[in-house]
Amino acid sequence: MAGSTYGTLFKITTWGESHGPAVGVVIDGCPAGLPLTNTDIQEFLDRRRPGQSRYTTARQESDEAEILSGVFEGKTTGTPVSILIRNQDQRSRDYGKIKDCYRPGHADYTFDCKYGFRDHRGGGRSSGRETIGRVAAGAVASRLLAGLGIQVTAYTSAIGTITVPRSEYNYECIRENALYMPNNDYAFKASAYLEQCIKNLDSSGGVIECAVTGMPAGIGEPVFDKLDAGLAKAVMSVGAVKGVEIGDGFRAAAANGSTNNDAFRSSDGHITKKTNHSGGVLGGMSDGSTILLRAAIKPTPSIAQPQKTVDCTGANTEITITGRHDPVIVPRAVVVIESMVAVTLADLLMTNMSAKMESLEKFYLGEL
Amino acid sequence: MAGSTYGTLFKITTWGESHGPAVGVVIDGCPAGLPLTNTDIQEFLDRRRPGQSRYTTARQESDEAEILSGVFEGKTTGTPVSILIRNQDQRSRDYGKIKDCYRPGHADYTFDCKYGFRDHRGGGRSSGRETIGRVAAGAVASRLLAGLGIQVTAYTSAIGTITVPRSEYNYECIRENALYMPNNDYAFKASAYLEQCIKNLDSSGGVIECAVTGMPAGIGEPVFDKLDAGLAKAVMSVGAVKGVEIGDGFRAAAANGSTNNDAFRSSDGHITKKTNHSGGVLGGMSDGSTILLRAAIKPTPSIAQPQKTVDCTGANTEITITGRHDPVIVPRAVVVIESMVAVTLADLLMTNMSAKMESLEKFYLGEL
Amino acid sequence: MAGSTYGTLFKITTWGESHGPAVGVVIDGCPAGLPLTNTDIQEFLDRRRPGQSRYTTARQESDEAEILSGVFEGKTTGTPVSILIRNQDQRSRDYGKIKDCYRPGHADYTFDCKYGFRDHRGGGRSSGRETIGRVAAGAVASRLLAGLGIQVTAYTSAIGTITVPRSEYNYECIRENALYMPNNDYAFKASAYLEQCIKNLDSSGGVIECAVTGMPAGIGEPVFDKLDAGLAKAVMSVGAVKGVEIGDGFRAAAANGSTNNDAFRSSDGHITKKTNHSGGVLGGMSDGSTILLRAAIKPTPSIAQPQKTVDCTGANTEITITGRHDPVIVPRAVVVIESMVAVTLADLLMTNMSAKMESLEKFYLGEL
Amino acid sequence: MAGSTYGTLFKITTWGESHGPAVGVVIDGCPAGLPLTNTDIQEFLDRRRPGQSRYTTARQESDEAEILSGVFEGKTTGTPVSILIRNQDQRSRDYGKIKDCYRPGHADYTFDCKYGFRDHRGGGRSSGRETIGRVAAGAVASRLLAGLGIQVTAYTSAIGTITVPRSEYNYECIRENALYMPNNDYAFKASAYLEQCIKNLDSSGGVIECAVTGMPAGIGEPVFDKLDAGLAKAVMSVGAVKGVEIGDGFRAAAANGSTNNDAFRSSDGHITKKTNHSGGVLGGMSDGSTILLRAAIKPTPSIAQPQKTVDCTGANTEITITGRHDPVIVPRAVVVIESMVAVTLADLLMTNMSAKMESLEKFYLGEL
Repeated sequence: MAGSTYGTLFKITTWGESHGPAVGVVIDGCPAGLPLTNTDIQEFLDRRRPGQSRYTTARQESDEAEILSGVFEGKTTGTPVSILIRNQDQRSRDYGKIKDCYRPGHADYTFDCKYGFRDHRGGGRSSGRETIGRVAAGAVASRLLAGLGIQVTAYTSAIGTITVPRSEYNYECIRENALYMPNNDYAFKASAYLEQCIKNLDSSGGVIECAVTGMPAGIGEPVFDKLDAGLAKAVMSVGAVKGVEIGDGFRAAAANGSTNNDAFRSSDGHITKKTNHSGGVLGGMSDGSTILLRAAIKPTPSIAQPQKTVDCTGANTEITITGRHDPVIVPRAVVVIESMVAVTLADLLMTNMSAKMESLEKFYLGEL
Repeated sequence: MAGSTYGTLFKITTWGESHGPAVGVVIDGCPAGLPLTNTDIQEFLDRRRPGQSRYTTARQESDEAEILSGVFEGKTTGTPVSILIRNQDQRSRDYGKIKDCYRPGHADYTFDCKYGFRDHRGGGRSSGRETIGRVAAGAVASRLLAGLGIQVTAYTSAIGTITVPRSEYNYECIRENALYMPNNDYAFKASAYLEQCIKNLDSSGGVIECAVTGMPAGIGEPVFDKLDAGLAKAVMSVGAVKGVEIGDGFRAAAANGSTNNDAFRSSDGHITKKTNHSGGVLGGMSDGSTILLRAAIKPTPSIAQPQKTVDCTGANTEITITGRHDPVIVPRAVVVIESMVAVTLADLLMTNMSAKMESLEKFYLGEL
Repeated sequence: MAGSTYGTLFKITTWGESHGPAVGVVIDGCPAGLPLTNTDIQEFLDRRRPGQSRYTTARQESDEAEILSGVFEGKTTGTPVSILIRNQDQRSRDYGKIKDCYRPGHADYTFDCKYGFRDHRGGGRSSGRETIGRVAAGAVASRLLAGLGIQVTAYTSAIGTITVPRSEYNYECIRENALYMPNNDYAFKASAYLEQCIKNLDSSGGVIECAVTGMPAGIGEPVFDKLDAGLAKAVMSVGAVKGVEIGDGFRAAAANGSTNNDAFRSSDGHITKKTNHSGGVLGGMSDGSTILLRAAIKPTPSIAQPQKTVDCTGANTEITITGRHDPVIVPRAVVVIESMVAVTLADLLMTNMSAKMESLEKFYLGEL
Repeated sequence: MAGSTYGTLFKITTWGESHGPAVGVVIDGCPAGLPLTNTDIQEFLDRRRPGQSRYTTARQESDEAEILSGVFEGKTTGTPVSILIRNQDQRSRDYGKIKDCYRPGHADYTFDCKYGFRDHRGGGRSSGRETIGRVAAGAVASRLLAGLGIQVTAYTSAIGTITVPRSEYNYECIRENALYMPNNDYAFKASAYLEQCIKNLDSSGGVIECAVTGMPAGIGEPVFDKLDAGLAKAVMSVGAVKGVEIGDGFRAAAANGSTNNDAFRSSDGHITKKTNHSGGVLGGMSDGSTILLRAAIKPTPSIAQPQKTVDCTGANTEITITGRHDPVIVPRAVVVIESMVAVTLADLLMTNMSAKMESLEKFYLGEL
């Protein structure tokens, strides 16, 4: 399975290489009647666009989305929404040097192993530009979720060794700093840390967190297609992600049941949990609390230091990577994680409509 | 999607509740000609069977597997392998008390939200007995992988706050202690920790690690169906898992590219990596190194302390759980994680056979 | 893909060979709250059971269904419904002779080509007993459809050269004759025709028709997953089916637009069609009329005449088949076709609930 | 499921409306290393292009394909092949009149039922232009099959009441006449028949046949995913198809086993069948003979005669359709059927590589 298609009922298919003419996505199964304009898409794309700060690649791309199908008079029609984004600044000459050897931390070697050869211009399909299609789809999914009162918000919780303590989160700051951190002071410290990385010809990793509010309880499947399993796949499918946690994550492994269990409480007919160690998921289904997940992002593998490697003939050699690369990809990956979460939830909400016979009856006998 | 089916070509479907007459699995798409006996299955099931030590539930189950189809004269035929395991010790009277209220940390509440009602006898489908089908399938997948020289080994790397340092791993110890730890001394310390938990009417979490050797390079898909994304879903779909890491995982988030990148080296025509921070996966495809993943397991939610909760009418109440429960589920989950990894890899190896046109040509023009 | 799993949200997985210990099905994704008992299943199984008349195999099987999971206190729980039927009269000695050569019209040769060897006892997985799982699933799907006012009815419209003219259909006769024909006189003629076939050591084909009433308009997908495309696959996946028609089928190929088009008419706010050449499907979606399809069933390939064939070593030889075989499989296939149609429609109704944004909003904002 | 994605490993996703800016397809999972150029695609598109004869719509479209991804230096890379075709002559004014009422035989009514509203310009997604994506994918699949020695050939076997007898087929004529018939004399008669239809302001149906040679034996799955079931869905998913037959099809229903069975014969180590009533499929798997299928195509529903219908308010009315429409769509559908067959076979060949454990072993131990 080539695996460029994702989802069951809300199904997205991305395509395109970094140095080909264009990249894009086809969203199949989006319900009819969702208001959708180019602006909705563009706003999301702008959040991952290069050139937003000195910590992101200088590649110049306007990343303008063209909706080619599935929208009529400002609303989705239920048929596939095809979105195209032309590549502009492809400068493949920069990549000539990496044609013949395998960059450490990149997919060059594994691509050659799998396919026998590769499009060696800038990472081809494993370039970060592949995520443009995901983000365009995320814009549509977020629009859908918003219509149901569900809000997905991702942000940077750590850059390298600089972590924002949860007690100092201020969600209103997220779009106020170039790193999308929920605290401007920590963003300032993280910037200093990144300056040091650049000076060292080095790069940094980080952590992205994502919170989902407004999710109804009971969404997800109890066995293989657990809500958290789906989110784990969605998030881990983003290049550079090396770990995923739901709720307390690895901290739960060191905890005891008496402290890790979230007590249920009832008030005014609403059932809530007093704490949220579970991260909003119990037994693979949403429990009505905020869904909280975290993704570990590895440092950008492209660094300007010389590195030991092997060339395509199998000879040992050394490589120094000179193209335009982000010293940290975390800030641009924030909207990618948010998009993957939104797409996953949109799909699950649609597949969960038929969980009860009573719902089918209401739907077909009363409403269609 | 009810989500009890998993996989594309090697496809498994599990079924059964903890207090129904039986549980089982159907494995569809297993290649023909794989030697398979009841003993192969039984050996895996015995590793997750209750009653192996004082840290696992006293429920008495022989968990004997019956192969009902798909095997003829000791070999798989290519048709579905259906495996049935009868439940024996169902004692549903123990669960009568929990019928009317929601156990904290359990799926009772979310089941009711999703389906409108639930089989309240012992967790029904969200019981740990659901994993029996997974383990039976894991036995088959492991047998398949072994035929290709691939070995999957899971073990307990931490119980609560007791973590075995990597430098002290001794894989030969894994089956020598009831906790499946790769170091008997740490297993002894962990046992003492668990005794304390039992004394406190409490439970403990832990970490399971899984290593895969012999995996060829180039297996996995570059976008949504990345090898690590598939593994993340597989592992997170096991109840109680709250986090997944590949390679260095969350430590990579705090690292720099210069130290996190694994240099390639060539020797005698073989390309290897000097280090394995990546955990055997680059760009979503296996890189020929050992695949290494870690799963965080939360503490057993069933504890004998009184807990605050809500009943099915929405009234606040308190619950004390008295059934038979493991103070830690980590040791029994080891073979479940191993099974999910094996099933995922078997499937990926099969779907990856057609990655190159050259392979199709060799296969259909030369060999069929 | 081994292909023993069928459906997207209402997903069934069948397993089992004719001469193994049992056959069965797992139904995953059946909505919770559907009343279901063993009797519902048994009634369907009894319609395909052998030994009902002298035109069906004398194999003695009680075909008793055991529901192993997914039903609690008489209602489905939303979790997989696993149904098991033990094989009783396996008499594999009858099949010893066919072990070493390929029966014409059977799958012996193609099984060997695909898998390298086969379970040679009575057709193994390609035996008609494989359909038991489909019929058990069909019983569940029909129960679900009945709850929505949808009725699926299959019957025999032709046996060999004896065809019931549409003008002489009387649906009330269908269960009055052993051939399930909608006219007892034609059933009598068809019986005489079959007597002649038996005397000639020969077999007969026939045509099964299936009508669906009560289907709401607008169900189906406009492109690859058209309602009629899904039904065509469902029906053609039944062994021995060699053709499928929707509505006028092949007669439409010789018609003109002016006569083949169905005019729409409105009366009392209801839109209907004056004729139904389309067979209830327009553009891949149900149009609110009766869905009508027809399946061509080939003659039973097992005949008592000597036939030329090849043995497994590749040598030319002759074979005379002596086991117990139906001279016509059409009557027993009626409930199989009905089941496959029911399963397909149940699945489509579930996947179509999210076609409009308005429905999601009503569902999640108003009702969950 | 919106159902614009088709296939398991060779997976295609089509998108686009007749009067939007473009239509296209994404082909995911095409093996790497397949030589592919724009010309390969164009040759297929030209066969379905409008304006080829007076029996096809006068709409002017150059239908030029642009490959946007997945091809590098003349060969597929294994990543998604995205193909875009701009719409040029959209003249939506012609369709203004049909905005408010339901054309008989079209999907206008069912689209409104399903989605609540529709893109009313020229049929939107249910227009014949939707098939452009299928044909572009068919070109790629045919290229893949050709590399394995497999040839798919579709042609018109009947137009209205004019049927070419099998004994008079001459495959070399197929591209010599505008109707793609395998006999120029019958094509001449069919043209006369069509002239009469045009004169009568009427349209005609017809039959398309498709033959596949070079298919290895043993491809297909024994249960739901039978080769013939897959082909039935593929063919029936093309708009206007109302029936599908494999081999003798409905004639088999009236036949006896003694004449319908195909005897196996062996000669020089090759096993063949003396006849081919089965149409190259036994038990859902290819038997090494020519695969033969037939599709019934209904008459074009758009005719220039006044027809009774209903408008969107539910009032009875009359409609006369004046746009540009083919009096027969059969000739242009020939390449669409051929494409769907090719795509289905490419997918099945890929999924069938792992049927035997021996193949996995050879592949991974010997060749990777």
